[in-house]
Amino acid sequence: MIKILRKISIKNIFLKKTLRVYFDHASGAPLDPRIQKEVRRAEAYFGNPSGIHTEGIEAKKLLMEARERIARVFSVRKNEIIFTSGGTEGNNLVIRGVIEAFRKNHPNIQPHIIVSSIEHASILECVKNMKDVSVSYIPVSSDGFVSVKDIKELLRDETVLISVQYVNNEIGSIQPIEDIAKMLRQYKKEKETMYPVFHADACQAGNYLSLRIPSLGVDAMTINGSKLYAPRGTGCVYMRQDIPCDTQMYGGDQEYGYRAGTENVPGIVGLSYGVLYREEEREKENTRVTELRDLLIDTLLLDPRIHLYGGRNNRIANIINIHIDNTMSEEIVIRLDQRGFAVSEKSACKSEDETLSHVISAITEGKGKGSIRISLGLGTTKKDCIRFVKELTDILKVMKV
Amino acid sequence: MIKILRKISIKNIFLKKTLRVYFDHASGAPLDPRIQKEVRRAEAYFGNPSGIHTEGIEAKKLLMEARERIARVFSVRKNEIIFTSGGTEGNNLVIRGVIEAFRKNHPNIQPHIIVSSIEHASILECVKNMKDVSVSYIPVSSDGFVSVKDIKELLRDETVLISVQYVNNEIGSIQPIEDIAKMLRQYKKEKETMYPVFHADACQAGNYLSLRIPSLGVDAMTINGSKLYAPRGTGCVYMRQDIPCDTQMYGGDQEYGYRAGTENVPGIVGLSYGVLYREEEREKENTRVTELRDLLIDTLLLDPRIHLYGGRNNRIANIINIHIDNTMSEEIVIRLDQRGFAVSEKSACKSEDETLSHVISAITEGKGKGSIRISLGLGTTKKDCIRFVKELTDILKVMKV
Repeated sequence: MIKILRKISIKNIFLKKTLRVYFDHASGAPLDPRIQKEVRRAEAYFGNPSGIHTEGIEAKKLLMEARERIARVFSVRKNEIIFTSGGTEGNNLVIRGVIEAFRKNHPNIQPHIIVSSIEHASILECVKNMKDVSVSYIPVSSDGFVSVKDIKELLRDETVLISVQYVNNEIGSIQPIEDIAKMLRQYKKEKETMYPVFHADACQAGNYLSLRIPSLGVDAMTINGSKLYAPRGTGCVYMRQDIPCDTQMYGGDQEYGYRAGTENVPGIVGLSYGVLYREEEREKENTRVTELRDLLIDTLLLDPRIHLYGGRNNRIANIINIHIDNTMSEEIVIRLDQRGFAVSEKSACKSEDETLSHVISAITEGKGKGSIRISLGLGTTKKDCIRFVKELTDILKVMKV
Repeated sequence: MIKILRKISIKNIFLKKTLRVYFDHASGAPLDPRIQKEVRRAEAYFGNPSGIHTEGIEAKKLLMEARERIARVFSVRKNEIIFTSGGTEGNNLVIRGVIEAFRKNHPNIQPHIIVSSIEHASILECVKNMKDVSVSYIPVSSDGFVSVKDIKELLRDETVLISVQYVNNEIGSIQPIEDIAKMLRQYKKEKETMYPVFHADACQAGNYLSLRIPSLGVDAMTINGSKLYAPRGTGCVYMRQDIPCDTQMYGGDQEYGYRAGTENVPGIVGLSYGVLYREEEREKENTRVTELRDLLIDTLLLDPRIHLYGGRNNRIANIINIHIDNTMSEEIVIRLDQRGFAVSEKSACKSEDETLSHVISAITEGKGKGSIRISLGLGTTKKDCIRFVKELTDILKVMKV
């Protein structure tokens, strides 16, 4: 059945496109035309920023301006911004870089890492593949939240790193980053230590939540361009300048020695405008999209067959995750696709042999069923939401669920 | 003096640009307008290739087409192409991935690596920062070449990896990759082993030399988009499918599990056209640029103060590296810049505290002096070359060298 549906779906590509509604912003947003224009402009400055000729100096100027643009939004020093090729590289850099730097200075201590059990695959898989570390997983409530108390209980003298997602990419729960940071500051002050380093994967947060580091209180943070309507293959890490962190890509001395390789200047310029524009329009968009999300949830939940994953409070404006009784998520996704809606069944970045999402599994103690993630964005309108509910209801009718 | 010149140079940015001649293609080429158009087109397909909706399927289609485009030029299977964020990431992936995979299967053997002493920093620094490996450096002749005989003598039972640059990025020497591969094939056949893996960093080669893997005989190869007039932040690795190689970036199962992270589809499409167009125009451009290079070398060497680094034979069509008596390279680069020529003093990707290029140092046994690299490209004309010699001669006159 699913195979047939998929074939029809592939055929759709070649048909003249009807009105499409893209509800998968959490797995990648379209490029903002204003940003596309800036990238275009930057592409003309093709010199290598390490060159000392005019072309090099021009490119370096664009690079520094982009760095400053982001540093201003984050309220940090510009040498605390490290450009990467995306969120996955950023998360890997922080996890492995911080642990390896610690290991060099403390060869006889086995580092301890604390992560939530619903982190993105780029955190969980990275941690899983590290040698000679011990890892604790923070439990998550059925609403999808970690608690400061649980983290405090997991702390050990040898805890080097704590990594908690600012916003979960599947169910949209906003974690209490500021409270965790506050507790850790107190802990570190009492113990007179700089460890554990507190890292937040903020890839899903920048559209609706503040990325101001002094307020958040994190020591390190990962950002991904493609979620911010900026180019693919871009991202950055904020790393407080006194945190020891090892290079994960060796070569030239670019990015203050943290990350070698010729800088992708056009991409970096695009990323910087993504961070800036999203910050400028953040509050307005947060209000607008939150209303649409709540309208969608309220209407969807009128159907007793539909259940919401995650709580109603402290949920990011654009992510909804539902389960529909007696259906398989893949079939619903494909049927919705045929009617012009792009939603997703689970995170695009899943572990290799994951059948049920590890996030849904964690919040339902393994009892959860397939889910559909609906993630709104800049172009989403009220009409789209109303039409979505209508079409979904119709699909369930056709399917005789 | 240099500081004053630099200030003037920075001022130039704001002046209306006069006719510029870009002679620094080896550190990054401008974006081919045809490729820019393809990237633009691909940006409209913004779905995540892991998504099962129309947008995802469309993006995946572009991704697979790009992979096939490159696989055809290389004459390899498409699952042997791993997309990366550039040459530095590619080189790091091969070196660390192959060594770590070997270590898992042979925990009691200390891996031995053989590299030439004039490899790119992303090879040398990567090797230098690996723990528990032994490294041998292949000596290089005063013309900048390694010899098959020297490599053969360095081989040990525990040699896991040999990495030799196809074309040196500073002096342009073309290494005998095919001969090395042939010797290694024989060696491995006799020993009945799959090791050592033979890797070539081909970042400087694609414009003028064939990247056909069956002819080259390498087991792994690194390519960089920005040298091929394709977008920055793109690259790929060819890795023969039976070579054990560990992931260097953990997360999703993209790129056959070798490299996690949402694929930069527009960048990858651009890279694939870079590989294709360069292959299509390779022979014609090789003849054209070789002529210009020889004209430049012949005219430059008429001046007894100018000396050529590297030999005249087996030199890539576009790279010239010279030393001028009684001058400092930085000053010459800046003076040339003021007259409209962009050349470079050394590789942009240098090690942190490198004063004299490690390549020049290696071929002159540490006695070399500052060098200027002139690297030609698609837009270079005979007129540019003639004007260059005239301006350089005039600079030397003004400087009273």
